[in-house]
Amino acid sequence: MYKITQIDNGVCASKGFFADGVSAGLKAKSAKDMAFIYSESECEIASVFTTNKMYAAPIKHFREKGEFKTNFILINSKNANAMTGDAGVKDIDEILAQVPQMKNPIMSSTGVIGVRLPKEKIIEGIKLFDFTKKESSNASQAIMTTDTFAKEIAFKVELEDGTHFNIGAIAKGAGMINPAMATMLCFITTDANVDSTLMQEILNEVTNTTFNAISVDGDTSTNDTVLLLSNASSGAFDREAFKEALFKTMHFLALEMVRDGEGATKLVTYNITGAKDNRDAEIVAKALSDSLLVKTALFGEDPNWGRIASTVGASGVEAYPEKLKISFNDLCVYDRGELYFDAQMEKKASSVMQQNKFTISCDLGVGEGEFRAYGCDLGYEYVKINADYRT
Amino acid sequence: MYKITQIDNGVCASKGFFADGVSAGLKAKSAKDMAFIYSESECEIASVFTTNKMYAAPIKHFREKGEFKTNFILINSKNANAMTGDAGVKDIDEILAQVPQMKNPIMSSTGVIGVRLPKEKIIEGIKLFDFTKKESSNASQAIMTTDTFAKEIAFKVELEDGTHFNIGAIAKGAGMINPAMATMLCFITTDANVDSTLMQEILNEVTNTTFNAISVDGDTSTNDTVLLLSNASSGAFDREAFKEALFKTMHFLALEMVRDGEGATKLVTYNITGAKDNRDAEIVAKALSDSLLVKTALFGEDPNWGRIASTVGASGVEAYPEKLKISFNDLCVYDRGELYFDAQMEKKASSVMQQNKFTISCDLGVGEGEFRAYGCDLGYEYVKINADYRT
Repeated sequence: MYKITQIDNGVCASKGFFADGVSAGLKAKSAKDMAFIYSESECEIASVFTTNKMYAAPIKHFREKGEFKTNFILINSKNANAMTGDAGVKDIDEILAQVPQMKNPIMSSTGVIGVRLPKEKIIEGIKLFDFTKKESSNASQAIMTTDTFAKEIAFKVELEDGTHFNIGAIAKGAGMINPAMATMLCFITTDANVDSTLMQEILNEVTNTTFNAISVDGDTSTNDTVLLLSNASSGAFDREAFKEALFKTMHFLALEMVRDGEGATKLVTYNITGAKDNRDAEIVAKALSDSLLVKTALFGEDPNWGRIASTVGASGVEAYPEKLKISFNDLCVYDRGELYFDAQMEKKASSVMQQNKFTISCDLGVGEGEFRAYGCDLGYEYVKINADYRT
Repeated sequence: MYKITQIDNGVCASKGFFADGVSAGLKAKSAKDMAFIYSESECEIASVFTTNKMYAAPIKHFREKGEFKTNFILINSKNANAMTGDAGVKDIDEILAQVPQMKNPIMSSTGVIGVRLPKEKIIEGIKLFDFTKKESSNASQAIMTTDTFAKEIAFKVELEDGTHFNIGAIAKGAGMINPAMATMLCFITTDANVDSTLMQEILNEVTNTTFNAISVDGDTSTNDTVLLLSNASSGAFDREAFKEALFKTMHFLALEMVRDGEGATKLVTYNITGAKDNRDAEIVAKALSDSLLVKTALFGEDPNWGRIASTVGASGVEAYPEKLKISFNDLCVYDRGELYFDAQMEKKASSVMQQNKFTISCDLGVGEGEFRAYGCDLGYEYVKINADYRT
């Protein structure tokens, strides 16, 4: 048995971790645009990076180091340092040379693709850092791009033997729908006593049902990064408890990203059951959360279940009109072709769609496979944000 | 040698074919909503249907007939007769029983999913048909849904031996981006002397580089249909000439659909070269024409080549930043990481993006594979049309 309690202070909730965010003039109007996360002692690392072949310089830089421990992450927003060639990697080396006291420092970037980092400004920014600060929320603000709110969370995990450890995180990302913005960064700290191999195994498992379940348009950015750092300073660990706390952390942040989807007004859970296998269920769930037609129908609060059926059918998995059931929350709107969708039912379905948060369930009726994905609607704001991002 | 000349009168350009469109009160305001195509003599048939597992009743009805010849197609808009179960197929039988003089009549539908056909209205509509009419453009209007203009084309093909045949078509579809609308219907007539086996072979080849190259969101509707009817009444045929004329017909209509993309303001050609193979090139071309990020950047006339690079990288094909080249028309904007995209170049790139029609080329630099796809931008109008289609 163990107890998991939500606590304050994000990445600084874990013992021995420090963080802050400053304004180095990368963004306009003195908004925070640089952050650090620092640990007193060296940390084991687990990581998940974008599968994009055009992965950015910071990821190349990280990978080229091989296996290592670190105690420092430097993060900037506004510029992704992607598609910047070898020069982009060299820029990172020159910047990180400014923190000689740190062990194997890591850099992470998010923002526009194809522009070199403003090296001088970043080096000036480093001089503003105070490594004794525990200001996680400043750090979470500094890594925002199109995010409309900062994202952080932390949990305390108390074990049966009286020991406890903490896990905390900050993240940025708005709906996972803007790959060119280096959509998604997440930095997780823990003082749990866990080595990198085990931590990596658990991180992979949890990523699949959290951040990978909100990849709403199938796109992955050049910069997507999850970094999990453990400095073991609590001395405590329990695998099951750690996994659950990590799930709670990443699940919360994943849903925060969807909720902050660019222009999004609705958070929709796609609950797929009865698929041939889990993989098929995942394909359907993501096809639905990616579908422009479904997303615009959500925005219009239109209970257009025909679009859902069509998207299921187009996804390529085994499915039949005479086996499919579709529900909006508890309201079944299509039952294997045997239900008459009348005005009464349409009225009920509309009232579900008018909520900010609801579930669309599809039972394919062919097997035991299931998957749950999370998506948002797509409205005018999305177009506005994305049609004119750079200028 | 042969000569292909564009001519008038769409599906009625082929000898012995008749067509018309009437208003049967399915759409509001007495807009045309029912059409027929009739041939004096029986026709060989070639067909391409949606791969959607939820394919509509008309497609089920067609497939259940096995091999057959026909001389009559009945088409209605406003209601797709999809997800209507066995009742939907039975409705077709009852409706087609009203044209007893026709041989193996075919029905085709487009519109909203999940609502039974208004059978009485359609039967009344049939009574309005005059089978001596050669009004292809009326038929092309009657099959429109969100289309903003009707689509028809015809060609005369003169062979070296002095014989000639004709090929003509009508189509509906707006940007291939609205699967629930039964997006895409195309009816092609020819008086060429060709049997169904050969015609099917040629139709498959041509479909891949025309209608399948504009499948801009990867979705396929429940009703997508291409029907090619030959009554052989010209007695003439030449395979190469027929294929080219069919390509011209379908290519024209495919681009018309993109041009009519819901809310689209730009027609963009994605010209992919240097991929590992043609399949990889096709994957990249479609990833680009499907990408929300690219489509909104086009709408914003923003030369954001980073989004293009990111989409290429996310598509999963073999690609490297140090081998990739990206051009807008003739202007190279990214050259294997060795080009500096300055303000001057941005200005030139912007002026390309301000055109209504341009080409985005990506050379992956890894092989000989190539593919060309066609797409449009995505703006506020798309959201407006799709958020509120049914009401």
